[in-house]
Amino acid sequence: MSGSSLGNIFKITTWGESHGEGIGVIIDGCPAGLSLCEEDIQLYLNRRKPGQSKFTTMRRESDTVEILSGTFEGVTTGTPISLLIRNQDQKSRDYSNIMNSYRPGHADYTFDAKYGIRDYRGGGRSSGRETIGRVAAGAIAAKLLGHLGIRITAYTKAIGSISIPEQDYHLDEISMNKLYMPNNEYAAKASEYLENCIKNQDSSGGIIECVVDGMPAGIGDPVFEKLDANLAKAIMSIGAVKGVEIGDGFQAASALGSQNNDSFFCNDSGIHKRTNHSGGVLGGMSDGSQIVLRAAVKPTPSISQEQQTVNKDSENISMTIHGRHDPVIVPRAVVVVESMTAISILDAVLMNMTSRLDSIVDFYR
Amino acid sequence: MSGSSLGNIFKITTWGESHGEGIGVIIDGCPAGLSLCEEDIQLYLNRRKPGQSKFTTMRRESDTVEILSGTFEGVTTGTPISLLIRNQDQKSRDYSNIMNSYRPGHADYTFDAKYGIRDYRGGGRSSGRETIGRVAAGAIAAKLLGHLGIRITAYTKAIGSISIPEQDYHLDEISMNKLYMPNNEYAAKASEYLENCIKNQDSSGGIIECVVDGMPAGIGDPVFEKLDANLAKAIMSIGAVKGVEIGDGFQAASALGSQNNDSFFCNDSGIHKRTNHSGGVLGGMSDGSQIVLRAAVKPTPSISQEQQTVNKDSENISMTIHGRHDPVIVPRAVVVVESMTAISILDAVLMNMTSRLDSIVDFYR
Amino acid sequence: MSGSSLGNIFKITTWGESHGEGIGVIIDGCPAGLSLCEEDIQLYLNRRKPGQSKFTTMRRESDTVEILSGTFEGVTTGTPISLLIRNQDQKSRDYSNIMNSYRPGHADYTFDAKYGIRDYRGGGRSSGRETIGRVAAGAIAAKLLGHLGIRITAYTKAIGSISIPEQDYHLDEISMNKLYMPNNEYAAKASEYLENCIKNQDSSGGIIECVVDGMPAGIGDPVFEKLDANLAKAIMSIGAVKGVEIGDGFQAASALGSQNNDSFFCNDSGIHKRTNHSGGVLGGMSDGSQIVLRAAVKPTPSISQEQQTVNKDSENISMTIHGRHDPVIVPRAVVVVESMTAISILDAVLMNMTSRLDSIVDFYR
Amino acid sequence: MSGSSLGNIFKITTWGESHGEGIGVIIDGCPAGLSLCEEDIQLYLNRRKPGQSKFTTMRRESDTVEILSGTFEGVTTGTPISLLIRNQDQKSRDYSNIMNSYRPGHADYTFDAKYGIRDYRGGGRSSGRETIGRVAAGAIAAKLLGHLGIRITAYTKAIGSISIPEQDYHLDEISMNKLYMPNNEYAAKASEYLENCIKNQDSSGGIIECVVDGMPAGIGDPVFEKLDANLAKAIMSIGAVKGVEIGDGFQAASALGSQNNDSFFCNDSGIHKRTNHSGGVLGGMSDGSQIVLRAAVKPTPSISQEQQTVNKDSENISMTIHGRHDPVIVPRAVVVVESMTAISILDAVLMNMTSRLDSIVDFYR
Repeated sequence: MSGSSLGNIFKITTWGESHGEGIGVIIDGCPAGLSLCEEDIQLYLNRRKPGQSKFTTMRRESDTVEILSGTFEGVTTGTPISLLIRNQDQKSRDYSNIMNSYRPGHADYTFDAKYGIRDYRGGGRSSGRETIGRVAAGAIAAKLLGHLGIRITAYTKAIGSISIPEQDYHLDEISMNKLYMPNNEYAAKASEYLENCIKNQDSSGGIIECVVDGMPAGIGDPVFEKLDANLAKAIMSIGAVKGVEIGDGFQAASALGSQNNDSFFCNDSGIHKRTNHSGGVLGGMSDGSQIVLRAAVKPTPSISQEQQTVNKDSENISMTIHGRHDPVIVPRAVVVVESMTAISILDAVLMNMTSRLDSIVDFYR
Repeated sequence: MSGSSLGNIFKITTWGESHGEGIGVIIDGCPAGLSLCEEDIQLYLNRRKPGQSKFTTMRRESDTVEILSGTFEGVTTGTPISLLIRNQDQKSRDYSNIMNSYRPGHADYTFDAKYGIRDYRGGGRSSGRETIGRVAAGAIAAKLLGHLGIRITAYTKAIGSISIPEQDYHLDEISMNKLYMPNNEYAAKASEYLENCIKNQDSSGGIIECVVDGMPAGIGDPVFEKLDANLAKAIMSIGAVKGVEIGDGFQAASALGSQNNDSFFCNDSGIHKRTNHSGGVLGGMSDGSQIVLRAAVKPTPSISQEQQTVNKDSENISMTIHGRHDPVIVPRAVVVVESMTAISILDAVLMNMTSRLDSIVDFYR
Repeated sequence: MSGSSLGNIFKITTWGESHGEGIGVIIDGCPAGLSLCEEDIQLYLNRRKPGQSKFTTMRRESDTVEILSGTFEGVTTGTPISLLIRNQDQKSRDYSNIMNSYRPGHADYTFDAKYGIRDYRGGGRSSGRETIGRVAAGAIAAKLLGHLGIRITAYTKAIGSISIPEQDYHLDEISMNKLYMPNNEYAAKASEYLENCIKNQDSSGGIIECVVDGMPAGIGDPVFEKLDANLAKAIMSIGAVKGVEIGDGFQAASALGSQNNDSFFCNDSGIHKRTNHSGGVLGGMSDGSQIVLRAAVKPTPSISQEQQTVNKDSENISMTIHGRHDPVIVPRAVVVVESMTAISILDAVLMNMTSRLDSIVDFYR
Repeated sequence: MSGSSLGNIFKITTWGESHGEGIGVIIDGCPAGLSLCEEDIQLYLNRRKPGQSKFTTMRRESDTVEILSGTFEGVTTGTPISLLIRNQDQKSRDYSNIMNSYRPGHADYTFDAKYGIRDYRGGGRSSGRETIGRVAAGAIAAKLLGHLGIRITAYTKAIGSISIPEQDYHLDEISMNKLYMPNNEYAAKASEYLENCIKNQDSSGGIIECVVDGMPAGIGDPVFEKLDANLAKAIMSIGAVKGVEIGDGFQAASALGSQNNDSFFCNDSGIHKRTNHSGGVLGGMSDGSQIVLRAAVKPTPSISQEQQTVNKDSENISMTIHGRHDPVIVPRAVVVVESMTAISILDAVLMNMTSRLDSIVDFYR
């Protein structure tokens, strides 16, 4: 089945394997009239690029994007935007270790179970490099949302059990540390924890939080295109994400109704809420407050410790994964979460435009 | 935008409002040859029916289903199955309280913000009654999955902070208590807690867990039709759900890779895993283990305490919601989670059939 | 596969069999704020109702529509509109003739080949009654388009070889004759021809033409959601339609470029074309001229003459189809073509609203 | 709106403009296990390449395809196949003539009306080069269908009014003449006619016919994913196509039922039909006979004669289109029709696999 497209109006289709010719994405349904150049996209790609710190793989890739279609004289034309990022570090290596064996925590076994064939080089389609297409599309979505006053910010809330409480957030510090944490002190503690992980040939997970400011109320379409439902799908589709929550999320399960309900109030600038336990979504539509979501990211499955597993011939074996891997993927996944959020929000914003007859009549007057 | 359909091959489209003529669903893409009668569906509907215990609304509805199309002599024909459940308890009441006011925690405000008009009677389209269509469709999906040896079980894991640890599960006790908890003692404690909620004019949330047994490996389609991504969307689209997790979920974020990785091993019956931290999904495809997911349900927003809010004229007001409401919706939502899981799993199972050329050649031989 | 839905934003899903409980349609994505009552829909249904003339089946059906959801106090709310038309004339008959035999020109054989089971009563899902859902949805689409100044008119251009040349059209005569022809004299000739068909136990085909006035330019989405491509699909999906053309259609194949090109010119009211060989579509988008399409309808396959065919047991047999059937379905299909055109045009009109960034910025200002 | 994708399971997404960086297509949902190399695709692309005869544009393009993803060691892996064809002949020219003027019969005006911006170089997205992506995808679909014994053949039935009657078809002659006509004598006459067109600075249309052999019965999904409905959309979405018909098509409109019905009969090899007026489709599903469709292609709108038109400033002007253009596009469009047919047939073949419970149970046994 065709599973590589996401979105109804602003639709992205990604393609590419880790060690194939390249990675790419088609953005179809992008409105005409948006000024767009490679630099706009490259800035986002650079945030997920390898080699940024000691906690990320040393693979050497510039991940340079090329716009192949959909713009004319630096402006989008409404036709599909095709983006290509050539792979550079894909030279032939020794894959004898993984071509026939199933690494624990990876998709090797499931790909073989489904398709009976698998491009095992660097994880093939299930590699983290697949997210390049998402981030490239997210850069465009975010730029367009900016014209509507909608801004998206993601950051690392937790690495392992080192979690920053909300009252300690300093959003201006996000870009000051390699872990994209909104608190430099917590980032320092997390770095120490990660160094220990490396020492122990182990890896760590974490939590990414993403907030959306400037949302108008009423965005999202009941009952299966709800804003939170589509966000959940978009975020859960990122490899290594095992949980998604909106607002208070799992905390809401143990709260009382009197605590969890957000009171409305009205002032000169309109209708607002006193609290935001809902995370900006009520009944699947934005309620005008900040949208808040969190993604749980599992520890990198590639660890250097010896592990027990099986091979294609159904033999029990032990294997050791060589090479240098990210002891944590959370920092590089921050921009992926931000991108998937941007794509989903923009699609919902566009879908909303046909909700009322009077707006349609106005449009065509 | 049309947001009332879900699924690619097994596609459901729900319709209906709480106090309109009825609630219904079209199931399109159901394979021909499934024996199906009203009773198959009614059994599922009865599990979400109101009035089953002191913790559920006293609304009197038999929720009787009528099959209008898609079967012939008790067997599905491959044509769309239309199911109708007439509303019975929708007589005219006094809605002056809510027709112009926005109840905290409800979708009143967001519906008005989006559409400029709202059927306020009983919550209209955002009522819990909307899930009737989901459950009716889920009953069919579950029956069909049964023919493939796939069984789905959902239950209440937690009410408020009363949460059953996995080692205390007794699945045979699920149907022995009104809260559908797999442990009667915890159910008794939870009942006490809920009685207190009622006394305090308050409400409670909880956690629903759902497991799928008998899944073949390789179900789910990378990268945006991943099994876990579609489950996340399906579950998050249920009103009141604020979080979804697969396997260890948010716990995985603080685990080490060496703890979180599941070792594969092989025996006479094939490839298996020693643990199941992944919750049965690797790379968005089933890995042959039990699928495990959890949904966080927020406390019922309708509470009898006086609350602060605003009305349509943008005036700050206080309001009291009259009538008897469920102090917790978790027990009635158990079958909704089970149904949405069944629908998503079946769709993925059907999508998987065109993955390999050799299977297709076999099919048409 | 789920094949009963059509449309991207204004999406219809039909269900029902000829002799089941009823026929219906869900209209999802209809904008809020449209005044709508049963009468609006009934007027369209009455145009396809049986028993209107001696050339149509005598089946007694009032085809009364019931709105089950999606409106509140006579206005659409943006939620799915569910329409139900109960079957009335479906009492048990003697189907021994067709339950095991494949009528020539009908879908009996193909349904069995696909599904292995078939509701043979009155043709089941392949009955002309299936179009009731389309017409009900078309009535809503047409009413909404009226608010945008877009008007759709369909009529019978030809019955058998009796075809009205364009210069003899009198559109005001369409509703003056039972054949919905825009020329009463031709209608009289066609009636004579049809009486002969009846006498000879034979049937006739014909051509339906449909025009759309008031279209703004630029509606339609390159390259697979082109306006003409979607119209072709919508019209060809009507049972018995074997050909579709836009503008000069098949005549264009033998024309010269210098004849077929339409010159643009400009006057005070904007840009226009001197001729309309294109039928109002250039590059898959409306060009501001009248849209013109034609559908070729095959003769009714049910004829009383003895015919050669086979049965389920693969025996060669001869069969005679009893009962009174329409000797021509063209007049009753006129409103079906009009409805499918309305549905397709409206969907394209809605899809067009997100084409430009400046409009989106305006919308959300 | 995103309009560049077609198909449900075998889904193609095309991108690219005539004078941008290149043209491409993503094929998503292609089953794993198909042997595939560039040569398979190049053979199809060469059939639509310019410069093959005096009747086609002299633009110099090798149209060389590069497979960027989706195969491993020469075999498809089930992941999206990305194909890139770089533009070569896109150097800067003098476009002052068309950048501000609307060529009659072209999409210049409609693109501007919709998007407010247009890549005018060589027609941009509305160029015939857009079909390169379709043909590349069609090559893959056709190869896969070959494994199922399904073969597709297209040819030129008519150029202008020179039309080959069915009894004069010699299919072996199709590849013997530059016009791809199944009769060399008619091809000679048509060549003469086209030389005259060139002399008169004029152009010609024509009719393409396409047949599908080896179809099993029952392919196609009622009621909106009918085989003929999807074929009609796919074919009508090709630029310059103004009409589509199946089987007898428009001729059926003037036939009698007794003539148009195809009798079934049975022999040792199964159920067949004595005639094939239906063109292989009954009730939207294949009936096991040869599928026959025809497309009406309008004359090339680019002619060298002076034409009246308007410019962006809404001034009436006369314009002359310089350069050498195809006096007829029919021969080069033959492989496009064949490709769109292959894509649609394959998608329907895959969609059909989930029609019956017993097949599904067999598949998962």
